[in-house]
Amino acid sequence: MSSNCKLIIFLGDGMGGRPVRALEGLTCLEAQYTPALDAMAAGGECGLMDPIKPGVPAGSDTAHMAILGYDPFEYYTGRGPFEARGVGLDVRPGDLAFRCNFATVEDNVVKDRRAGRITKRTDELAAEIQQAFADGIDGVQVLFKESVAHRAVLVLRGEGLDHRITDVDPHGSEAQIHRCQPLPEAADDPAAQRTAQIVNQFVQQAHQVLEASQVNVDRLAQNKLPANAILPRGVGTAPHLKSFADQYSMNGAMIVEVDLVRGLGIYLGMDVIDVAGATGGMDTDEMAIAQAVDQALKEHDFVLCNIKAPDIGGHDGDVEQKMAAIAQVDRAMGYLLENLDWSQTVMMLGADHCTPISVQDHSGDAVPISFYGYGVRPDGVDKYGERACAAGSIHRITGNDIMNILCNYGERAEKFGA
Amino acid sequence: MSSNCKLIIFLGDGMGGRPVRALEGLTCLEAQYTPALDAMAAGGECGLMDPIKPGVPAGSDTAHMAILGYDPFEYYTGRGPFEARGVGLDVRPGDLAFRCNFATVEDNVVKDRRAGRITKRTDELAAEIQQAFADGIDGVQVLFKESVAHRAVLVLRGEGLDHRITDVDPHGSEAQIHRCQPLPEAADDPAAQRTAQIVNQFVQQAHQVLEASQVNVDRLAQNKLPANAILPRGVGTAPHLKSFADQYSMNGAMIVEVDLVRGLGIYLGMDVIDVAGATGGMDTDEMAIAQAVDQALKEHDFVLCNIKAPDIGGHDGDVEQKMAAIAQVDRAMGYLLENLDWSQTVMMLGADHCTPISVQDHSGDAVPISFYGYGVRPDGVDKYGERACAAGSIHRITGNDIMNILCNYGERAEKFGA
Repeated sequence: MSSNCKLIIFLGDGMGGRPVRALEGLTCLEAQYTPALDAMAAGGECGLMDPIKPGVPAGSDTAHMAILGYDPFEYYTGRGPFEARGVGLDVRPGDLAFRCNFATVEDNVVKDRRAGRITKRTDELAAEIQQAFADGIDGVQVLFKESVAHRAVLVLRGEGLDHRITDVDPHGSEAQIHRCQPLPEAADDPAAQRTAQIVNQFVQQAHQVLEASQVNVDRLAQNKLPANAILPRGVGTAPHLKSFADQYSMNGAMIVEVDLVRGLGIYLGMDVIDVAGATGGMDTDEMAIAQAVDQALKEHDFVLCNIKAPDIGGHDGDVEQKMAAIAQVDRAMGYLLENLDWSQTVMMLGADHCTPISVQDHSGDAVPISFYGYGVRPDGVDKYGERACAAGSIHRITGNDIMNILCNYGERAEKFGA
Repeated sequence: MSSNCKLIIFLGDGMGGRPVRALEGLTCLEAQYTPALDAMAAGGECGLMDPIKPGVPAGSDTAHMAILGYDPFEYYTGRGPFEARGVGLDVRPGDLAFRCNFATVEDNVVKDRRAGRITKRTDELAAEIQQAFADGIDGVQVLFKESVAHRAVLVLRGEGLDHRITDVDPHGSEAQIHRCQPLPEAADDPAAQRTAQIVNQFVQQAHQVLEASQVNVDRLAQNKLPANAILPRGVGTAPHLKSFADQYSMNGAMIVEVDLVRGLGIYLGMDVIDVAGATGGMDTDEMAIAQAVDQALKEHDFVLCNIKAPDIGGHDGDVEQKMAAIAQVDRAMGYLLENLDWSQTVMMLGADHCTPISVQDHSGDAVPISFYGYGVRPDGVDKYGERACAAGSIHRITGNDIMNILCNYGERAEKFGA
């Protein structure tokens, strides 16, 4: 099969939820007035989706991997590789990649995990570190680069490395820096032992470099906390992933507001599109995002769009905020409903996971979904929400099914068999 | 995530079924008046569960393994190891364990598989056998212990053993004792061949020991059948299973009436709680069981409870008996519904498998389930039964999903990803 049908995955980040007492037992999605989302349900095939599998809370990275058809159980070991690719480091399959913080440390005790929320001159600090490790450590190549604010990424490249090691970051203040060591299951593994040693050596030498840096001399003179330590965490082995284009014989774009997911998109060779006004916050310009999706479809077969705002209200446990964010998603959807050519477009509307008000974090509850547009068999569900969609004809599927189903509707799926 | 939410799995053994002609096509569950079970459905998220996978009839052991999150396809080779652990034998991963009967044999022909339903002095017989095999067989250590009534367990420990061998027990009377031999798929496997030889040697020498025992001299004098043979069956390799505590970071208790399942609980390091009045029969004290669950929750994060009675009526093909047993389960449920603090408790109500009246054995039909309590999204199903629950928003899951879903509701699930 082949066709010109355009495919869209449109996600409200963390948009699913659980009953809220203040809403008389409705979820935020159920309680908010969402004419466009409801129209998507009424004209579509509805159901529930477990991003990973039933009951397993998904991260932003694993959820998007699964929904894009890359099984996280097979490919995911940690977020580091996507983070590193997101800031432009040349991560290659097999590399170890870490997220890092610039931090303030005294006598090996973390005084501030974010070095006084440093925002400036981390590029200079990173360049000094990169310079100091120009020859690598013990035959292993070291790449280091600053990211947003106090964040940075570290990549180790070489033979005999293993990601089964602990974080250096103690994830709290007034705590001793952790010595990196093999995870219990890899305690006797020489590669894990060596990797831990290399990480510890990096942390120690980086500390010396940063202590001596003019940037920190200046910060101290300005009464700011020095960024005198690097705390690696979230290590992962960069996986061998087929590019999106190779996997699906389509060109794909991503319009998302989460850096980690942008990193995944870059990793997959997708076009990651910047939208002026897309802030990743409650003040985002959802209409600009919708217009960007419309625009992107002119040059791409596939677009994944994720609006971050609903997740924020969920994490904050703020009902009004989450409902307002859902209204934003609904407005964006309204624009697309009106402006796309649905005679040759099919969309999966959903969420990457639930972020219930009561949990204030990602949960493993199934999310409501609707497939709308070309090729679908509308099922009579007329409202978009957790329980309304549960009655739909899609029943309950997992994230890994989404691309197959979308490609099928759009007549872009390959026949298995003869 | 982490929380103080308590988790319960509450099972009516074999409680699911099929339409019964005498009940005008209703199942026993559908026909019985069950106000408490119905309340669990009305306030819960309902669906169907395949303990193993669709259409595969589950044993008590494999069903409970799956429901506790230990994939039986990966870990189960036979019931022997759980049986052996249940009677207090120190079974270690890698051991071969068998269920055995004390039997009466003449010239290698089984006269009575249960040695005249022997109930006394099997401890003396077992001690004599254990004594006779103090030096093991061909470098393999032999452990033997009596269980309830005519039952016993045998454990073989050593290198180069294989569970792919046949039963010695012919599973009938007036039948020749089977010589243990490798299963067809392991016919050429030296380990299976050797294991079969060791088992045959054990059976032969045990026969000599028992023939000479004073216990049997006394039995013959009392005109009782001698317990002069051991018939091993149900061999399994003891699996490496993470303890329940390590697997879930919770302490778990089991209140069950089936020895085999108790053995699994002990194997997993759970607290297996005895309840006075819990007989495993129709005369069981279901209210004492319910109170014990309430009590156990004060000191445990997790309790699995199974009331055996419904399964008995199913095996007997006795509609009235099964319906009466379902009423017992309903009364126990009523107690819990009233007495537990549901603001911090979540329960999975269900069955380990169906035991339909028409089948008189375990079937592979899906069982109705409801998740009730903290965190759930009630779905409008208002009755607990096979077909009512099939309309619920859980749709259809497998036993392996249960713990993930329970932990998710209770905010005890770990996020996969970032």
